[in-house]
Amino acid sequence: MPDDFERMWADLAPVGRSAGSGGYFRQPWTTPETELRHWFTEQCRARGLDVETDPVGNQVAWWNPVASDRPGVLTGSHLDSVLDGGAYDGPLGVVSALAALDRLRERGFLPSRPIGVSVFAEEEGSRFGLACLGSRLAAGALPWERARELRDRDGVFLPDALEAAGLGVADGDDLTWPLAERVATFVELHVEQGRDLVDRGAAVGVASEIWPHGRYRFDFAGEANHAGTTRMADRVDPMLTYAMTALAANKQARLVDQRATFGRIDVAPNGTNAIPSRVTAWLDARCSTDDALAELVQRITDQAADRADRDGTRLQVTAESVSASVSFDPELARMLAADHEGGDWPIIATMAGHDAGILSAAGVRTAMLFVRNPTGVSHSPAETASIADCLVGVSALADSLERLAR
Amino acid sequence: MPDDFERMWADLAPVGRSAGSGGYFRQPWTTPETELRHWFTEQCRARGLDVETDPVGNQVAWWNPVASDRPGVLTGSHLDSVLDGGAYDGPLGVVSALAALDRLRERGFLPSRPIGVSVFAEEEGSRFGLACLGSRLAAGALPWERARELRDRDGVFLPDALEAAGLGVADGDDLTWPLAERVATFVELHVEQGRDLVDRGAAVGVASEIWPHGRYRFDFAGEANHAGTTRMADRVDPMLTYAMTALAANKQARLVDQRATFGRIDVAPNGTNAIPSRVTAWLDARCSTDDALAELVQRITDQAADRADRDGTRLQVTAESVSASVSFDPELARMLAADHEGGDWPIIATMAGHDAGILSAAGVRTAMLFVRNPTGVSHSPAETASIADCLVGVSALADSLERLAR
Repeated sequence: MPDDFERMWADLAPVGRSAGSGGYFRQPWTTPETELRHWFTEQCRARGLDVETDPVGNQVAWWNPVASDRPGVLTGSHLDSVLDGGAYDGPLGVVSALAALDRLRERGFLPSRPIGVSVFAEEEGSRFGLACLGSRLAAGALPWERARELRDRDGVFLPDALEAAGLGVADGDDLTWPLAERVATFVELHVEQGRDLVDRGAAVGVASEIWPHGRYRFDFAGEANHAGTTRMADRVDPMLTYAMTALAANKQARLVDQRATFGRIDVAPNGTNAIPSRVTAWLDARCSTDDALAELVQRITDQAADRADRDGTRLQVTAESVSASVSFDPELARMLAADHEGGDWPIIATMAGHDAGILSAAGVRTAMLFVRNPTGVSHSPAETASIADCLVGVSALADSLERLAR
Repeated sequence: MPDDFERMWADLAPVGRSAGSGGYFRQPWTTPETELRHWFTEQCRARGLDVETDPVGNQVAWWNPVASDRPGVLTGSHLDSVLDGGAYDGPLGVVSALAALDRLRERGFLPSRPIGVSVFAEEEGSRFGLACLGSRLAAGALPWERARELRDRDGVFLPDALEAAGLGVADGDDLTWPLAERVATFVELHVEQGRDLVDRGAAVGVASEIWPHGRYRFDFAGEANHAGTTRMADRVDPMLTYAMTALAANKQARLVDQRATFGRIDVAPNGTNAIPSRVTAWLDARCSTDDALAELVQRITDQAADRADRDGTRLQVTAESVSASVSFDPELARMLAADHEGGDWPIIATMAGHDAGILSAAGVRTAMLFVRNPTGVSHSPAETASIADCLVGVSALADSLERLAR
């Protein structure tokens, strides 16, 4: 008998959890994330489903009781976390997918097409800097030739990380999934990462769109020198250029009611008594339109360049990833949201990137369900959702799959 | 036959050198620094001198050809470096000490009291955050009970680092050197860390004083959250408080013509798509007087606290080490600087801390010699000195030792 939602949730609770912060460190292709992949395989096996694992660790298991050869309905999310992240971002969608499958079977539902449960690797980009790495490869949106050059913070190349996790891409491997033949619709359930559903008093909602967003690496180069003996006027200190840029990014985003964040920084040599030779910092920017995003990043870059001129430092800005806006299929969203007891589910936008955005951009008919998050906090140990709302989410996902695979 | 200066200098060149930057990573109690300690032992042995190594790795070797029991003249410096530091800061004083000893022997000089060559451990504080750790322990200025609680960036406690390097403090060990009985005078030769000697057109100079200086840890606490979905107005982002503080420190130091630097930072969780929960940054501040230092740090702290109020973040400031101003014995400085061919050596102040400052504060009659640094750059791979100037430094040190041990 398969485990129910709460039992599965309890299984995952200790994996990769920091005793200090209570947050999760489930970076891709590390021990905790490998453990989660094995857990997923076992859960599928317990339901009589075979798991296919692709060379980078993306996984899918199909339930196809009528042996249909029609394209299926895929649901799932990811199991990796940001550094010191919450329990829900990702795993809630995977656990809910398995639990929804259990509900459909309990209902005696016989799908007319396969229903698949999937897990995509490195959704957060917390290790190799590129969000949705697994789904990008599966969707053919990222060539392996580029992915293989990615390095993590310790300088480990992606192929070596895969090998260490017992995976690996061999010459001639085709990483692109045959999405057109196999996937008619993709539905991802996810914890909401804001308070829209709280404001609306709804336990679940359906996504309308994902804001365009990008990650930009700012390299500020200066001249290392002694922090005590170097006259203030003689310094070429990239920390100052960075500091002004971080403040400018915040101000520019506020002015246009968009989002800009510097949350990651790497300083060399990072010694108390040395003026840095280099500061590298990553800008995360998100806007309501592609044009607004380009304009916001340009304004921040211009201000950084002005300050670099004054400081005598050198600035280089590299767009590490830019994701255009995604509008999910509006007809599908309305269909899933309508005709429920207690009224329609709200249809809301999100500022967060998701594997669903990658699949949608690749031409797959895609929808997302959100589960209410009382604090609105995400990417933090404070991220949460009530069990009651999670179970509403499981029912909502089961109902959605039933409508799509009837 | 002992090696000469250039041969010794060439011996040290590859140890702990980064092929990428050309800078040095000679953190205390790591493999490169242990190698340097062995090199020093071998150099002393080759000169027929026995090396005493204390439980934390401070070393001393005495040359005492007339078997005098008078307090000796000690000279030396340190072999550790800042992260990605230069070749000269520290090792120049050790190599020059050995070379000066060779000169005295070549001259047939018979000292009337012992002449010792010393190496102090963790002068830079680059690993355990407390500068002059070795000399502070030897001078009785730091109790072992406090030192044993120090941890490096990876959380390694000092006792474990010592053990890994084949050293270690046993119960009952007295780490304080009998300075009053053994050391009449301490002379440290050091590369200059500014351009005073360049401006004066002198190859060597004598120190008048060390500016008071301190290291202060600024902990800014906020609330981790999703960088995309969290409205700008809802954020509690400690990176902003830090950024303003770094700019304020620079401005305040400029206004009063003193020094303030934020060169080291640690961010949690340090993820591109997460607003940080915490930013820790270290302020290095140096001033011409103790009062000016206290005032500067207070001004920076006040501005940081104001900004924290506005950001909703929490600030805690911890003084990790504060060194009061050191005035070296003026009579000794004048005596060493006077009566040379080509004129007296200049007597100049320094803004950098040194083991000599610790020994001076502990009551040892102390002097420092500086060797000209053409760029004035220090704590950087660009730190340099010409071989010609270094050899002038060796002669100057030999002359000073001769005057002191005649």
